[in-house]
Amino acid sequence: MSILGVGLLGGSIGLAVKSVISDCQVVGYGHRRQTLDAAVAMGAIDQGYDVLAEAVRDAELVILCTPVGLFESLLSQLAAHVKPGAIITDVGSTKRSIVGAAERILPDGVHFVGSHPMAGSEKRGVEFARTDLFQRALCITTPTAATDAGALERVESFWKLLGMRLTRLSPEEHDRMLAEVSHLPHALAAALVHLPSDAALTLAGKGFLDATRIAGGDGGLWRDIFLDNRDSLQSALAKARRELDRLEELLATDNGEALRAWLDEAAGRREALLRRKLGDVNPD
Amino acid sequence: MSILGVGLLGGSIGLAVKSVISDCQVVGYGHRRQTLDAAVAMGAIDQGYDVLAEAVRDAELVILCTPVGLFESLLSQLAAHVKPGAIITDVGSTKRSIVGAAERILPDGVHFVGSHPMAGSEKRGVEFARTDLFQRALCITTPTAATDAGALERVESFWKLLGMRLTRLSPEEHDRMLAEVSHLPHALAAALVHLPSDAALTLAGKGFLDATRIAGGDGGLWRDIFLDNRDSLQSALAKARRELDRLEELLATDNGEALRAWLDEAAGRREALLRRKLGDVNPD
Repeated sequence: MSILGVGLLGGSIGLAVKSVISDCQVVGYGHRRQTLDAAVAMGAIDQGYDVLAEAVRDAELVILCTPVGLFESLLSQLAAHVKPGAIITDVGSTKRSIVGAAERILPDGVHFVGSHPMAGSEKRGVEFARTDLFQRALCITTPTAATDAGALERVESFWKLLGMRLTRLSPEEHDRMLAEVSHLPHALAAALVHLPSDAALTLAGKGFLDATRIAGGDGGLWRDIFLDNRDSLQSALAKARRELDRLEELLATDNGEALRAWLDEAAGRREALLRRKLGDVNPD
Repeated sequence: MSILGVGLLGGSIGLAVKSVISDCQVVGYGHRRQTLDAAVAMGAIDQGYDVLAEAVRDAELVILCTPVGLFESLLSQLAAHVKPGAIITDVGSTKRSIVGAAERILPDGVHFVGSHPMAGSEKRGVEFARTDLFQRALCITTPTAATDAGALERVESFWKLLGMRLTRLSPEEHDRMLAEVSHLPHALAAALVHLPSDAALTLAGKGFLDATRIAGGDGGLWRDIFLDNRDSLQSALAKARRELDRLEELLATDNGEALRAWLDEAAGRREALLRRKLGDVNPD
Protein backbone atom coordinates (compact mmCIF):
# COMPACT_ATOMS: atom_id res chain seq x y z
CA MET A 1 0.00 0.00 0.00
CA SER A 2 1.02 3.58 -0.56
CA ILE A 3 0.62 6.54 1.81
CA LEU A 4 0.71 9.92 0.08
CA GLY A 5 1.81 12.47 2.68
CA VAL A 6 3.63 11.06 5.70
CA GLY A 7 2.62 13.36 8.55
CA LEU A 8 0.78 12.66 11.79
CA LEU A 9 -2.05 10.76 10.07
CA GLY A 10 -0.05 9.11 7.29
CA GLY A 11 2.67 8.06 9.72
CA SER A 12 0.15 6.70 12.20
CA ILE A 13 -1.53 4.66 9.46
CA GLY A 14 1.84 3.16 8.57
CA LEU A 15 2.65 2.31 12.18
CA ALA A 16 -0.81 0.83 12.76
CA VAL A 17 -0.75 -1.28 9.59
CA LYS A 18 2.73 -2.59 10.41
CA SER A 19 1.58 -3.53 13.91
CA VAL A 20 -1.22 -5.77 12.59
CA ILE A 21 0.19 -7.07 9.25
CA SER A 22 3.91 -7.52 9.61
CA ASP A 23 4.55 -8.49 5.98
CA CYS A 24 2.58 -5.66 4.35
CA GLN A 25 4.78 -3.52 2.10
CA VAL A 26 4.09 0.15 2.95
CA VAL A 27 5.55 2.91 0.82
CA GLY A 28 5.30 6.63 1.45
CA TYR A 29 5.35 9.66 -0.81
CA GLY A 30 6.40 13.16 0.20
CA HIS A 31 8.38 16.06 -1.14
CA ARG A 32 10.74 16.32 1.83
CA ARG A 33 13.40 13.64 1.94
CA GLN A 34 14.01 14.31 5.64
CA THR A 35 10.39 13.45 6.53
CA LEU A 36 10.51 10.28 4.44
CA ASP A 37 13.75 9.19 6.12
CA ALA A 38 12.27 9.86 9.56
CA ALA A 39 9.18 7.82 8.65
CA VAL A 40 11.37 4.91 7.51
CA ALA A 41 13.52 5.18 10.63
CA MET A 42 10.51 4.95 12.94
CA GLY A 43 9.07 2.01 11.01
CA ALA A 44 6.01 3.82 9.63
CA ILE A 45 6.96 3.04 6.01
CA ASP A 46 9.33 0.61 4.35
CA GLN A 47 10.36 2.93 1.58
CA GLY A 48 9.98 6.64 0.84
CA TYR A 49 9.60 8.17 -2.62
CA ASP A 50 9.59 11.77 -3.72
CA VAL A 51 8.34 10.80 -7.19
CA LEU A 52 4.61 10.09 -7.15
CA ALA A 53 4.63 7.59 -10.04
CA GLU A 54 7.11 5.37 -8.18
CA ALA A 55 5.15 5.56 -4.94
CA VAL A 56 1.84 4.38 -6.42
CA ARG A 57 2.96 2.02 -9.21
CA ASP A 58 2.67 -1.25 -7.29
CA ALA A 59 0.09 -0.26 -4.70
CA GLU A 60 -3.26 -2.03 -4.33
CA LEU A 61 -4.38 0.59 -1.83
CA VAL A 62 -3.41 4.27 -2.03
CA ILE A 63 -4.31 6.65 0.82
CA LEU A 64 -4.24 10.42 0.35
CA CYS A 65 -2.95 11.93 3.61
CA THR A 66 -1.86 15.41 2.52
CA PRO A 67 -3.81 18.58 3.31
CA VAL A 68 -7.18 18.65 1.53
CA GLY A 69 -6.07 21.43 -0.84
CA LEU A 70 -3.60 19.10 -2.61
CA PHE A 71 -5.99 16.20 -3.22
CA GLU A 72 -7.22 17.12 -6.69
CA SER A 73 -3.72 17.72 -8.01
CA LEU A 74 -2.53 14.40 -6.54
CA LEU A 75 -5.43 12.53 -8.14
CA SER A 76 -4.65 14.07 -11.53
CA GLN A 77 -1.01 13.08 -11.25
CA LEU A 78 -1.53 9.54 -10.00
CA ALA A 79 -4.36 8.64 -12.43
CA ALA A 80 -1.91 7.61 -15.14
CA HIS A 81 0.32 5.58 -12.82
CA VAL A 82 -1.84 3.41 -10.57
CA LYS A 83 -2.47 -0.16 -11.61
CA PRO A 84 -5.88 -1.37 -12.80
CA GLY A 85 -8.04 -2.47 -9.86
CA ALA A 86 -6.24 -0.21 -7.40
CA ILE A 87 -8.33 1.30 -4.63
CA ILE A 88 -7.82 4.92 -3.61
CA THR A 89 -9.07 6.46 -0.40
CA ASP A 90 -8.20 9.51 1.71
CA VAL A 91 -8.27 10.94 5.23
CA GLY A 92 -9.65 14.39 4.42
CA SER A 93 -11.93 16.44 6.66
CA THR A 94 -14.15 17.44 3.71
CA LYS A 95 -15.68 14.97 1.31
CA ARG A 96 -17.74 16.50 -1.52
CA SER A 97 -14.81 17.95 -3.45
CA ILE A 98 -12.54 14.91 -3.27
CA VAL A 99 -15.32 12.44 -4.08
CA GLY A 100 -16.41 14.61 -7.03
CA ALA A 101 -12.84 15.02 -8.28
CA ALA A 102 -12.14 11.29 -8.02
CA GLU A 103 -15.27 10.39 -10.00
CA ARG A 104 -14.26 12.92 -12.66
CA ILE A 105 -10.55 12.19 -12.88
CA LEU A 106 -9.85 8.52 -12.17
CA PRO A 107 -9.91 6.02 -15.08
CA ASP A 108 -12.37 3.13 -15.20
CA GLY A 109 -11.23 0.22 -13.08
CA VAL A 110 -9.55 2.40 -10.47
CA HIS A 111 -11.88 2.72 -7.48
CA PHE A 112 -12.24 5.60 -5.10
CA VAL A 113 -13.87 5.50 -1.65
CA GLY A 114 -14.01 8.67 0.47
CA SER A 115 -12.94 8.21 4.11
CA HIS A 116 -12.68 10.49 7.10
CA PRO A 117 -10.98 8.76 10.01
CA MET A 118 -11.77 11.10 12.92
CA ALA A 119 -8.51 10.92 14.79
CA GLY A 120 -5.64 13.30 15.16
CA SER A 121 -4.69 16.31 17.17
CA GLU A 122 -3.66 19.90 16.67
CA LYS A 123 -0.09 18.56 16.39
CA ARG A 124 1.52 18.07 13.02
CA GLY A 125 4.34 15.94 11.65
CA VAL A 126 5.37 12.31 11.52
CA GLU A 127 7.21 12.67 14.85
CA PHE A 128 3.80 12.72 16.58
CA ALA A 129 2.57 9.57 14.75
CA ARG A 130 1.17 6.85 17.04
CA THR A 131 0.32 3.20 16.44
CA ASP A 132 -2.90 3.49 18.45
CA LEU A 133 -4.16 6.79 17.01
CA PHE A 134 -7.16 5.15 15.32
CA GLN A 135 -8.14 2.65 18.02
CA ARG A 136 -11.88 2.91 18.79
CA ALA A 137 -12.18 6.22 16.95
CA LEU A 138 -14.90 6.77 14.35
CA CYS A 139 -14.29 6.56 10.61
CA ILE A 140 -16.86 7.97 8.21
CA THR A 141 -16.98 6.56 4.68
CA THR A 142 -18.88 8.50 2.03
CA PRO A 143 -20.00 6.16 -0.76
CA THR A 144 -22.12 7.43 -3.66
CA ALA A 145 -24.14 5.68 -6.34
CA ALA A 146 -20.90 5.44 -8.35
CA THR A 147 -18.90 3.71 -5.58
CA ASP A 148 -17.79 0.14 -6.24
CA ALA A 149 -19.32 -2.11 -3.57
CA GLY A 150 -16.26 -4.35 -3.30
CA ALA A 151 -13.92 -1.39 -2.96
CA LEU A 152 -16.12 0.11 -0.24
CA GLU A 153 -16.04 -3.15 1.65
CA ARG A 154 -12.27 -3.39 1.38
CA VAL A 155 -11.72 0.17 2.54
CA GLU A 156 -14.04 -0.31 5.51
CA SER A 157 -12.28 -3.57 6.41
CA PHE A 158 -8.99 -1.71 6.30
CA TRP A 159 -10.12 0.91 8.85
CA LYS A 160 -11.62 -1.83 11.03
CA LEU A 161 -8.27 -3.58 10.98
CA LEU A 162 -6.83 -0.39 12.49
CA GLY A 163 -9.40 -0.60 15.29
CA MET A 164 -11.88 1.96 14.00
CA ARG A 165 -15.66 2.06 14.28
CA LEU A 166 -17.37 2.71 10.94
CA THR A 167 -20.32 4.78 9.79
CA ARG A 168 -21.53 5.81 6.32
CA LEU A 169 -22.80 9.22 5.19
CA SER A 170 -23.26 10.86 1.82
CA PRO A 171 -20.49 13.38 1.01
CA GLU A 172 -23.11 16.16 1.36
CA GLU A 173 -24.31 14.99 4.79
CA HIS A 174 -20.73 14.59 5.94
CA ASP A 175 -19.73 18.12 4.99
CA ARG A 176 -22.84 19.72 6.48
CA MET A 177 -22.49 17.85 9.80
CA LEU A 178 -18.74 18.33 10.11
CA ALA A 179 -19.18 22.06 9.53
CA GLU A 180 -21.37 22.11 12.66
CA VAL A 181 -19.28 19.99 15.00
CA SER A 182 -15.75 20.66 13.75
CA HIS A 183 -15.25 23.51 11.27
CA LEU A 184 -17.51 26.05 13.01
CA PRO A 185 -16.05 25.27 16.48
CA HIS A 186 -12.62 25.88 14.97
CA ALA A 187 -13.77 29.20 13.50
CA LEU A 188 -15.32 30.35 16.79
CA ALA A 189 -12.23 29.33 18.72
CA ALA A 190 -10.05 31.41 16.39
CA ALA A 191 -12.45 34.36 16.74
CA LEU A 192 -12.30 33.99 20.55
CA VAL A 193 -8.50 34.20 20.51
CA HIS A 194 -8.53 37.30 18.29
CA LEU A 195 -11.12 39.16 20.34
CA PRO A 196 -9.72 40.11 23.78
CA SER A 197 -7.55 43.17 24.34
CA ASP A 198 -3.93 42.37 25.27
CA ALA A 199 -4.68 43.41 28.87
CA ALA A 200 -7.75 41.17 29.08
CA LEU A 201 -5.83 38.24 27.62
CA THR A 202 -3.44 38.28 30.60
CA LEU A 203 -6.46 37.25 32.71
CA ALA A 204 -7.35 34.28 30.51
CA GLY A 205 -7.18 30.97 32.33
CA LYS A 206 -7.71 27.26 31.84
CA GLY A 207 -11.30 27.67 30.65
CA PHE A 208 -10.20 30.02 27.88
CA LEU A 209 -7.31 27.77 26.88
CA ASP A 210 -9.56 24.71 26.67
CA ALA A 211 -12.19 26.58 24.68
CA THR A 212 -9.56 27.68 22.16
CA ARG A 213 -7.35 24.57 22.01
CA ILE A 214 -8.59 23.63 18.55
CA ALA A 215 -7.57 27.08 17.26
CA GLY A 216 -3.96 25.97 17.81
CA GLY A 217 -4.06 23.83 14.65
CA ASP A 218 -2.14 24.50 11.46
CA GLY A 219 -3.46 27.54 9.58
CA GLY A 220 -2.80 26.22 6.08
CA LEU A 221 -4.58 22.97 6.73
CA TRP A 222 -7.65 24.73 8.15
CA ARG A 223 -7.72 27.36 5.42
CA ASP A 224 -8.03 24.47 2.93
CA ILE A 225 -10.86 22.92 4.93
CA PHE A 226 -12.72 26.23 5.38
CA LEU A 227 -12.53 27.13 1.68
CA ASP A 228 -13.33 23.62 0.51
CA ASN A 229 -16.40 23.45 2.75
CA ARG A 230 -17.22 27.12 2.45
CA ASP A 231 -20.98 26.94 1.88
CA SER A 232 -21.53 24.53 4.79
CA LEU A 233 -19.38 26.67 7.07
CA GLN A 234 -21.31 29.77 5.99
CA SER A 235 -24.58 28.00 6.88
CA ALA A 236 -23.18 26.98 10.25
CA LEU A 237 -22.03 30.57 10.88
CA ALA A 238 -25.56 31.76 10.09
CA LYS A 239 -26.90 29.26 12.64
CA ALA A 240 -24.38 30.51 15.19
CA ARG A 241 -25.55 34.08 14.63
CA ARG A 242 -29.12 32.98 15.22
CA GLU A 243 -28.06 31.40 18.54
CA LEU A 244 -26.35 34.65 19.50
CA ASP A 245 -29.52 36.56 18.46
CA ARG A 246 -31.42 34.40 20.91
CA LEU A 247 -28.92 35.02 23.72
CA GLU A 248 -28.86 38.77 23.05
CA GLU A 249 -32.64 38.88 23.15
CA LEU A 250 -32.63 37.14 26.55
CA LEU A 251 -30.04 39.62 27.82
CA ALA A 252 -31.87 42.65 26.40
CA THR A 253 -35.15 41.59 27.99
CA ASP A 254 -33.48 40.59 31.27
CA ASN A 255 -35.20 37.21 30.96
CA GLY A 256 -33.44 35.32 33.74
CA GLU A 257 -35.68 32.28 33.59
CA ALA A 258 -35.26 31.68 29.86
CA LEU A 259 -31.54 32.50 30.10
CA ARG A 260 -31.09 29.89 32.79
CA ALA A 261 -33.03 27.37 30.68
CA TRP A 262 -30.80 28.17 27.65
CA LEU A 263 -27.66 27.61 29.76
CA ASP A 264 -29.01 24.49 31.50
CA GLU A 265 -30.08 22.95 28.19
CA ALA A 266 -26.59 23.48 26.79
CA ALA A 267 -24.98 21.94 29.89
CA GLY A 268 -27.41 18.99 29.72
CA ARG A 269 -26.89 18.40 26.01
CA ARG A 270 -23.12 18.41 26.45
CA GLU A 271 -23.34 16.10 29.47
CA ALA A 272 -25.40 13.59 27.46
CA LEU A 273 -22.84 13.75 24.64
CA LEU A 274 -19.99 13.22 27.09
CA ARG A 275 -21.69 10.15 28.55
CA ARG A 276 -22.13 8.66 25.07
CA LYS A 277 -18.49 9.34 24.25
CA LEU A 278 -17.12 7.68 27.39
CA GLY A 279 -15.16 4.67 26.30
CA ASP A 280 -14.15 6.21 22.98
CA VAL A 281 -10.45 6.79 22.53
CA ASN A 282 -8.92 9.43 20.26
CA PRO A 283 -12.29 10.56 18.93
CA ASP A 284 -10.78 13.95 17.99
CA MET B 1 -13.51 34.13 59.92
CA SER B 2 -16.82 33.38 58.30
CA ILE B 3 -17.51 31.79 54.91
CA LEU B 4 -20.96 32.55 53.52
CA GLY B 5 -21.84 29.75 51.13
CA VAL B 6 -19.89 26.53 51.57
CA GLY B 7 -19.59 25.10 48.07
CA LEU B 8 -16.55 24.34 45.93
CA LEU B 9 -14.95 27.76 46.53
CA GLY B 10 -16.09 28.34 50.12
CA GLY B 11 -15.10 24.82 51.12
CA SER B 12 -11.71 25.13 49.44
CA ILE B 13 -11.06 28.42 51.24
CA GLY B 14 -11.82 26.70 54.56
CA LEU B 15 -9.54 23.76 53.80
CA ALA B 16 -6.74 26.05 52.61
CA VAL B 17 -6.97 28.35 55.65
CA LYS B 18 -6.98 25.38 58.02
CA SER B 19 -3.91 23.97 56.31
CA VAL B 20 -1.86 27.14 56.95
CA ILE B 21 -3.32 28.48 60.24
CA SER B 22 -4.31 25.56 62.41
CA ASP B 23 -5.86 27.61 65.21
CA CYS B 24 -8.03 29.87 63.02
CA GLN B 25 -11.72 29.56 63.87
CA VAL B 26 -13.64 29.14 60.59
CA VAL B 27 -17.42 29.20 60.56
CA GLY B 28 -19.68 28.60 57.60
CA TYR B 29 -23.15 29.79 56.67
CA GLY B 30 -25.57 27.99 54.38
CA HIS B 31 -29.24 27.13 54.14
CA ARG B 32 -28.75 23.38 53.79
CA ARG B 33 -27.81 21.62 57.03
CA GLN B 34 -26.51 18.61 55.07
CA THR B 35 -23.92 20.76 53.25
CA LEU B 36 -22.81 22.40 56.50
CA ASP B 37 -22.41 19.00 58.17
CA ALA B 38 -20.41 17.71 55.21
CA ALA B 39 -18.15 20.79 55.36
CA VAL B 40 -17.55 20.25 59.09
CA ALA B 41 -16.89 16.54 58.55
CA MET B 42 -14.24 17.23 55.91
CA GLY B 43 -12.58 19.87 58.05
CA ALA B 44 -13.40 22.85 55.84
CA ILE B 45 -15.22 24.68 58.67
CA ASP B 46 -15.34 24.30 62.46
CA GLN B 47 -18.98 25.19 62.81
CA GLY B 48 -21.93 25.58 60.45
CA TYR B 49 -24.81 28.03 60.90
CA ASP B 50 -28.04 28.40 58.98
CA VAL B 51 -28.72 31.76 60.68
CA LEU B 52 -26.67 34.54 59.11
CA ALA B 53 -26.45 36.73 62.25
CA GLU B 54 -24.81 33.89 64.18
CA ALA B 55 -22.37 33.12 61.39
CA VAL B 56 -20.98 36.66 61.09
CA ARG B 57 -21.25 37.97 64.70
CA ASP B 58 -17.68 37.21 65.82
CA ALA B 59 -15.93 37.27 62.46
CA GLU B 60 -13.07 39.65 61.64
CA LEU B 61 -13.16 38.52 58.01
CA VAL B 62 -16.34 37.56 56.15
CA ILE B 63 -16.13 36.06 52.64
CA LEU B 64 -19.17 35.94 50.35
CA CYS B 65 -18.99 32.66 48.44
CA THR B 66 -22.57 32.24 47.21
CA PRO B 67 -23.66 32.81 43.60
CA VAL B 68 -23.32 36.46 42.58
CA GLY B 69 -27.11 36.96 42.49
CA LEU B 70 -27.38 36.59 46.27
CA PHE B 71 -24.64 39.05 47.24
CA GLU B 72 -26.73 42.19 47.65
CA SER B 73 -29.31 40.46 49.81
CA LEU B 74 -26.56 38.93 51.99
CA LEU B 75 -24.90 42.33 52.46
CA SER B 76 -28.21 43.89 53.52
CA GLN B 77 -28.81 41.13 56.03
CA LEU B 78 -25.32 41.02 57.53
CA ALA B 79 -24.87 44.83 57.79
CA ALA B 80 -26.62 44.93 61.17
CA HIS B 81 -24.76 41.96 62.61
CA VAL B 82 -21.06 42.25 61.79
CA LYS B 83 -18.77 43.78 64.37
CA PRO B 84 -17.17 47.19 63.89
CA GLY B 85 -13.88 46.90 62.04
CA ALA B 86 -14.89 43.69 60.29
CA ILE B 87 -13.63 43.22 56.76
CA ILE B 88 -15.89 41.79 54.09
CA THR B 89 -14.73 40.38 50.77
CA ASP B 90 -16.14 38.02 48.14
CA VAL B 91 -15.21 35.56 45.40
CA GLY B 92 -17.62 36.77 42.72
CA SER B 93 -16.95 36.71 38.97
CA THR B 94 -18.40 40.22 38.53
CA LYS B 95 -17.29 43.22 40.55
CA ARG B 96 -19.14 46.48 39.79
CA SER B 97 -22.46 45.49 41.35
CA ILE B 98 -21.05 44.00 44.56
CA VAL B 99 -18.58 46.85 45.12
CA GLY B 100 -21.35 49.41 44.51
CA ALA B 101 -23.79 47.59 46.78
CA ALA B 102 -21.22 47.29 49.58
CA GLU B 103 -20.38 50.99 49.45
CA ARG B 104 -24.09 51.79 49.58
CA ILE B 105 -25.19 49.30 52.23
CA LEU B 106 -22.42 48.68 54.74
CA PRO B 107 -22.17 50.91 57.82
CA ASP B 108 -19.14 53.10 58.48
CA GLY B 109 -16.32 51.16 60.06
CA VAL B 110 -17.15 47.94 58.22
CA HIS B 111 -14.78 47.59 55.27
CA PHE B 112 -15.42 45.95 51.93
CA VAL B 113 -12.78 44.84 49.41
CA GLY B 114 -13.85 43.20 46.15
CA SER B 115 -11.95 40.01 45.25
CA HIS B 116 -12.07 37.59 42.36
CA PRO B 117 -9.90 34.54 43.04
CA MET B 118 -9.67 32.93 39.60
CA ALA B 119 -9.85 29.30 40.58
CA GLY B 120 -12.55 26.71 40.36
CA SER B 121 -14.01 24.34 37.84
CA GLU B 122 -17.32 23.55 36.22
CA LYS B 123 -17.93 21.27 39.21
CA ARG B 124 -20.09 22.42 42.10
CA GLY B 125 -20.44 21.49 45.74
CA VAL B 126 -18.29 21.19 48.83
CA GLU B 127 -17.46 17.57 47.95
CA PHE B 128 -15.17 18.91 45.20
CA ALA B 129 -13.38 21.34 47.56
CA ARG B 130 -9.57 21.11 47.49
CA THR B 131 -6.91 22.50 49.80
CA ASP B 132 -4.69 23.47 46.86
CA LEU B 133 -7.38 25.04 44.65
CA PHE B 134 -5.89 28.54 44.95
CA GLN B 135 -2.19 27.68 44.79
CA ARG B 136 -0.42 29.87 42.19
CA ALA B 137 -3.74 31.01 40.70
CA LEU B 138 -4.45 34.68 40.12
CA CYS B 139 -6.61 36.78 42.44
CA ILE B 140 -7.91 40.15 41.26
CA THR B 141 -8.79 42.75 43.89
CA THR B 142 -10.90 45.73 42.82
CA PRO B 143 -10.28 48.67 45.17
CA THR B 144 -11.94 52.04 44.58
CA ALA B 145 -11.34 55.53 46.00
CA ALA B 146 -13.58 54.50 48.90
CA THR B 147 -11.61 51.37 49.81
CA ASP B 148 -9.81 51.36 53.16
CA ALA B 149 -6.09 50.89 52.53
CA GLY B 150 -5.56 48.72 55.60
CA ALA B 151 -8.47 46.46 54.70
CA LEU B 152 -7.17 46.10 51.14
CA GLU B 153 -3.77 45.08 52.46
CA ARG B 154 -5.28 42.55 54.83
CA VAL B 155 -7.46 40.98 52.14
CA GLU B 156 -4.53 40.74 49.73
CA SER B 157 -2.38 39.16 52.46
CA PHE B 158 -5.13 36.65 53.05
CA TRP B 159 -5.18 35.50 49.42
CA LYS B 160 -1.36 35.41 49.37
CA LEU B 161 -1.48 33.14 52.40
CA LEU B 162 -3.56 30.76 50.28
CA GLY B 163 -0.82 30.78 47.66
CA MET B 164 -2.39 33.20 45.19
CA ARG B 165 -0.77 35.77 42.92
CA LEU B 166 -2.38 39.22 43.21
CA THR B 167 -3.32 41.92 40.76
CA ARG B 168 -5.50 45.04 41.08
CA LEU B 169 -8.08 46.39 38.65
CA SER B 170 -10.95 48.84 38.94
CA PRO B 171 -14.35 47.09 39.13
CA GLU B 172 -15.12 48.50 35.65
CA GLU B 173 -11.89 47.19 34.10
CA HIS B 174 -12.42 43.83 35.76
CA ASP B 175 -15.92 43.38 34.38
CA ARG B 176 -14.99 44.49 30.87
CA MET B 177 -11.95 42.20 30.70
CA LEU B 178 -13.63 39.19 32.27
CA ALA B 179 -16.49 39.51 29.77
CA GLU B 180 -13.93 39.00 27.01
CA VAL B 181 -11.94 36.11 28.45
CA SER B 182 -14.55 34.31 30.53
CA HIS B 183 -18.20 35.32 30.10
CA LEU B 184 -18.18 35.53 26.29
CA PRO B 185 -16.29 32.21 25.93
CA HIS B 186 -18.95 30.65 28.13
CA ALA B 187 -21.71 32.15 25.99
CA LEU B 188 -20.11 30.93 22.74
CA ALA B 189 -19.57 27.47 24.18
CA ALA B 190 -23.26 27.24 25.11
CA ALA B 191 -24.24 28.45 21.62
CA LEU B 192 -21.94 25.81 20.09
CA VAL B 193 -23.65 23.06 22.06
CA HIS B 194 -27.12 24.25 21.03
CA LEU B 195 -26.31 24.56 17.35
CA PRO B 196 -25.67 21.10 15.79
CA SER B 197 -28.49 18.84 14.67
CA ASP B 198 -28.85 15.65 16.74
CA ALA B 199 -27.34 13.65 13.87
CA ALA B 200 -24.35 15.99 13.58
CA LEU B 201 -23.78 15.86 17.33
CA THR B 202 -23.14 12.10 17.16
CA LEU B 203 -20.00 12.99 15.15
CA ALA B 204 -18.68 15.42 17.75
CA GLY B 205 -15.33 14.42 19.18
CA LYS B 206 -12.67 15.50 21.62
CA GLY B 207 -12.17 18.91 19.96
CA PHE B 208 -15.86 19.73 20.32
CA LEU B 209 -15.94 18.52 23.93
CA ASP B 210 -12.91 20.62 24.86
CA ALA B 211 -14.29 23.70 23.13
CA THR B 212 -17.55 23.37 25.07
CA ARG B 213 -16.27 22.17 28.45
CA ILE B 214 -16.98 25.52 30.12
CA ALA B 215 -20.62 25.29 28.97
CA GLY B 216 -20.98 22.39 31.44
CA GLY B 217 -21.12 24.82 34.37
CA ASP B 218 -24.15 25.51 36.54
CA GLY B 219 -26.87 27.43 34.66
CA GLY B 220 -28.10 29.44 37.64
CA LEU B 221 -24.64 30.65 38.55
CA TRP B 222 -23.89 31.73 35.00
CA ARG B 223 -27.29 33.36 34.50
CA ASP B 224 -26.42 35.56 37.52
CA ILE B 225 -23.03 36.44 36.02
CA PHE B 226 -24.46 37.17 32.54
CA LEU B 227 -27.22 39.42 33.85
CA ASP B 228 -24.99 41.16 36.37
CA ASN B 229 -22.38 41.90 33.69
CA ARG B 230 -24.89 42.33 30.91
CA ASP B 231 -23.54 45.48 29.25
CA SER B 232 -19.95 44.17 29.14
CA LEU B 233 -21.14 40.84 27.76
CA GLN B 234 -23.20 42.66 25.12
CA SER B 235 -20.10 44.62 24.09
CA ALA B 236 -18.06 41.43 23.90
CA LEU B 237 -20.80 39.80 21.79
CA ALA B 238 -20.67 42.77 19.43
CA LYS B 239 -16.89 42.30 19.14
CA ALA B 240 -17.43 38.60 18.44
CA ARG B 241 -19.85 39.46 15.65
CA ARG B 242 -17.28 41.79 14.12
CA GLU B 243 -14.72 38.93 14.16
CA LEU B 244 -17.27 36.70 12.42
CA ASP B 245 -17.96 39.50 9.90
CA ARG B 246 -14.25 39.45 9.12
CA LEU B 247 -14.18 35.68 8.70
CA GLU B 248 -17.31 35.70 6.53
CA GLU B 249 -15.80 38.37 4.32
CA LEU B 250 -12.67 36.24 3.84
CA LEU B 251 -14.83 33.23 2.96
CA ALA B 252 -17.08 35.21 0.61
CA THR B 253 -14.11 36.66 -1.27
CA ASP B 254 -12.25 33.32 -1.28
CA ASN B 255 -9.26 35.13 0.20
CA GLY B 256 -7.06 32.16 1.09
CA GLU B 257 -4.02 34.21 1.97
CA ALA B 258 -5.80 36.49 4.45
CA LEU B 259 -7.78 33.54 5.82
CA ARG B 260 -4.58 31.66 6.52
CA ALA B 261 -3.12 34.75 8.18
CA TRP B 262 -6.26 35.10 10.35
CA LEU B 263 -5.97 31.44 11.42
CA ASP B 264 -2.20 31.57 11.94
CA GLU B 265 -2.45 34.75 14.01
CA ALA B 266 -5.03 33.10 16.27
CA ALA B 267 -2.85 29.99 16.67
CA GLY B 268 0.18 32.17 17.42
CA ARG B 269 -1.61 34.38 19.93
CA ARG B 270 -2.92 31.32 21.78
CA GLU B 271 0.51 29.69 21.72
CA ALA B 272 2.08 32.81 23.29
CA LEU B 273 -0.63 32.83 25.96
CA LEU B 274 -0.05 29.16 26.69
CA ARG B 275 3.69 29.72 27.11
CA ARG B 276 3.03 32.56 29.59
CA LYS B 277 0.62 30.37 31.54
CA LEU B 278 2.99 27.42 31.86
CA GLY B 279 3.77 27.02 35.51
CA ASP B 280 0.41 28.37 36.65
CA VAL B 281 -1.76 25.89 38.50
CA ASN B 282 -5.57 26.04 38.63
CA PRO B 283 -5.72 29.30 36.73
CA ASP B 284 -9.28 28.52 35.52
